[in-house]
Amino acid sequence: MTKGQDTKLTILDAGLDMASQLGLENVSIGALAKATSMSKSGLFAHFESKENLQIEILNHAGMLFTQQVITPAIRTKAGIPRIMALLDNYISWDCNLTGGCIFVTASTDYKDRPGKVRDFLLKQQLLWIESLAQIAESAVGTGEFRKDADCEQFAFEFYSLLLGVHLYYKLLNKSDIKKRYQTAFEKLLHSFR
Amino acid sequence: MTKGQDTKLTILDAGLDMASQLGLENVSIGALAKATSMSKSGLFAHFESKENLQIEILNHAGMLFTQQVITPAIRTKAGIPRIMALLDNYISWDCNLTGGCIFVTASTDYKDRPGKVRDFLLKQQLLWIESLAQIAESAVGTGEFRKDADCEQFAFEFYSLLLGVHLYYKLLNKSDIKKRYQTAFEKLLHSFR
Repeated sequence: MTKGQDTKLTILDAGLDMASQLGLENVSIGALAKATSMSKSGLFAHFESKENLQIEILNHAGMLFTQQVITPAIRTKAGIPRIMALLDNYISWDCNLTGGCIFVTASTDYKDRPGKVRDFLLKQQLLWIESLAQIAESAVGTGEFRKDADCEQFAFEFYSLLLGVHLYYKLLNKSDIKKRYQTAFEKLLHSFR
Repeated sequence: MTKGQDTKLTILDAGLDMASQLGLENVSIGALAKATSMSKSGLFAHFESKENLQIEILNHAGMLFTQQVITPAIRTKAGIPRIMALLDNYISWDCNLTGGCIFVTASTDYKDRPGKVRDFLLKQQLLWIESLAQIAESAVGTGEFRKDADCEQFAFEFYSLLLGVHLYYKLLNKSDIKKRYQTAFEKLLHSFR
């Protein structure tokens, strides 16, 4: 990795953290320069515009998400073990970012802001939902889910549950959240068997 | 209603709409003055600070939410009809605001912004979750839910589902969302019978 690439990665990590806390819309070249104690012109040379910076942060988050959440799940035994790995990995991802999952934050920020950032985010979200459905398909393959299980429906219910966990954990700081989501998750799995 | 109260209500309606679209954090006295073509000093006289304005918008949203979502549900027959009314009312509320439910947006905005606005929002969210649990209790009362049904668990699962609907509807614009949430809702009810 060149020094330039290394610097860029450091900036993107700081940008991701800022976006997770304050919302992607509030990450600008100026704000990020201040947070990283770098010059605004230096950051401008890397990203050229606020919009590009935001897309690069989403892209960086997407790569980390694949590495930390999706890939290790796909390497786990197909079927329910894989789905359980996905849940655990997602919860670690959500907990490890200061403000929680950036995609939840960004989805709220960008639902009404048409443009390139929203388009990029939308593609990422659709890919994520497709991954969820595919991982559910693996449980149809192993016979753990019934043959006619609607895997798109599973993706919707599973994602809804993750959104609930994010809210209860990040805003409400509910101490019983682990018991809550485990109960809900067991029921979810059961309903597709 | 005095002219002053009437003006304030008009401002709060515009503020709510802006907060639902852009996030509560992006509603300032200046931005709202511009959107309502009013003077900044006039708005300042009504609200005194950005923080107060944001709390008043949340309070206004809370009153409308009670009027449009909670009260009509409580007036519906206890038990499952009441829970169904709550779902329908929430979905109308979420659809009728330009950017969808302000509480979802504000929860994302404020999870990492300690202060009076977050404290106020947190109280509202806890009250909402308590209302959900109470409405579930009414189904225990009618015998539609089993005696030992965990109504806090119901509140968590029901709220998670609403968050999923919000995302699928507002960001992803999924056409099959109605079928998706109805299926999930039927299963949710069934699991507490």
